[in-house]
Amino acid sequence: MTIHYPNGKSYLQSKQPKSLSQDNNTSFSRRGMSLEAELNDANAYYLATGQAVVHKKPTPIQIVKVDYPQRSKAIIREAYFRQPSTTDYNGVYRGFYLDFDAKETKNKTAFPFRNFHAHQIEHMRQCLQQQAICFAIIRFVIYDRIFLVPADYLISKWDEQNHGGRKSIPLTAICEHGYEIKYALNPLIPYLDAVDRFIKDIHR
Amino acid sequence: MTIHYPNGKSYLQSKQPKSLSQDNNTSFSRRGMSLEAELNDANAYYLATGQAVVHKKPTPIQIVKVDYPQRSKAIIREAYFRQPSTTDYNGVYRGFYLDFDAKETKNKTAFPFRNFHAHQIEHMRQCLQQQAICFAIIRFVIYDRIFLVPADYLISKWDEQNHGGRKSIPLTAICEHGYEIKYALNPLIPYLDAVDRFIKDIHR
Repeated sequence: MTIHYPNGKSYLQSKQPKSLSQDNNTSFSRRGMSLEAELNDANAYYLATGQAVVHKKPTPIQIVKVDYPQRSKAIIREAYFRQPSTTDYNGVYRGFYLDFDAKETKNKTAFPFRNFHAHQIEHMRQCLQQQAICFAIIRFVIYDRIFLVPADYLISKWDEQNHGGRKSIPLTAICEHGYEIKYALNPLIPYLDAVDRFIKDIHR
Repeated sequence: MTIHYPNGKSYLQSKQPKSLSQDNNTSFSRRGMSLEAELNDANAYYLATGQAVVHKKPTPIQIVKVDYPQRSKAIIREAYFRQPSTTDYNGVYRGFYLDFDAKETKNKTAFPFRNFHAHQIEHMRQCLQQQAICFAIIRFVIYDRIFLVPADYLISKWDEQNHGGRKSIPLTAICEHGYEIKYALNPLIPYLDAVDRFIKDIHR
């Protein structure tokens, strides 16, 4: 049985190899929020403070049947989830077009490619052609470490995989090629700091 | 009774004042497509030809009840349409972040502001602060004329309206401050041509 602290982290977590876990004992009362919820929180903060306009796209839904009851609003009675053809987040920051997806993995040593769909990678490729700032935000749940991983790096590894390469990206490689995002107070995930470093490196 | 030609245009159309109707007798077999369908067509063309990555955002839906029948995919059984908090279209073009909404009006002399929601205008304002290329694509259905109208012009008129100004923008003003998009063959609405002219004027 796994014992959970009130902050949602499991007790087992502290038994992970020290070298890979972030040296961060401060709790910011995350209470087990999902990465998506944390990013929505960050986006709301950035919007309210006039720093960026980034929204999560709604889930695409195929609507089949809608009822229009009298004196009340339309009720969708039959609908199905559709596969999104893009990444989940996009927006504008200092004139830059940002485009990214957020992924979590419970894997301890690598990020498995099965978390991505081919069409998401294809979308990133198309965005890069248009000079987008394109990346993935990947959380290693067990260590509670978050990285901005540039899309061009992801895509190169994805293409290698399709030609017999490994089916995952090692955490050590992500540490090297990504930009770590440290938890903070407001917003919890100050991912624009990592975006700044990323943009600086692109235009170097 | 209005007589319709096979291309979906009404016979009455030709009776409109010559000065306002577009001098364009060529039919491109639009068959009465909606502006949204035409824009989706243009976006698919621009994507396939590597010119831009622009998608319409899915309609936001509040899901209340989902059934998971055995051996088949999830069925949404109760859901409601939510008010979108942004514009409908965004994407990236030559490093520029594009953000726009598409509106049609049957009005003959002006575009009524009731076609916009306050939150859409607010979203445009936020995007402009981040140096977005932000606009509306407005079609005057009766004349079949389409214009790219810059967001800053729209917003200034919107603000005037809220302080006792008129509740619409005259077509003559849109002719003057907007960029007309002429129907073509592929795509039907080559709106990036108007975006090019708009960007040129911004950076002049």
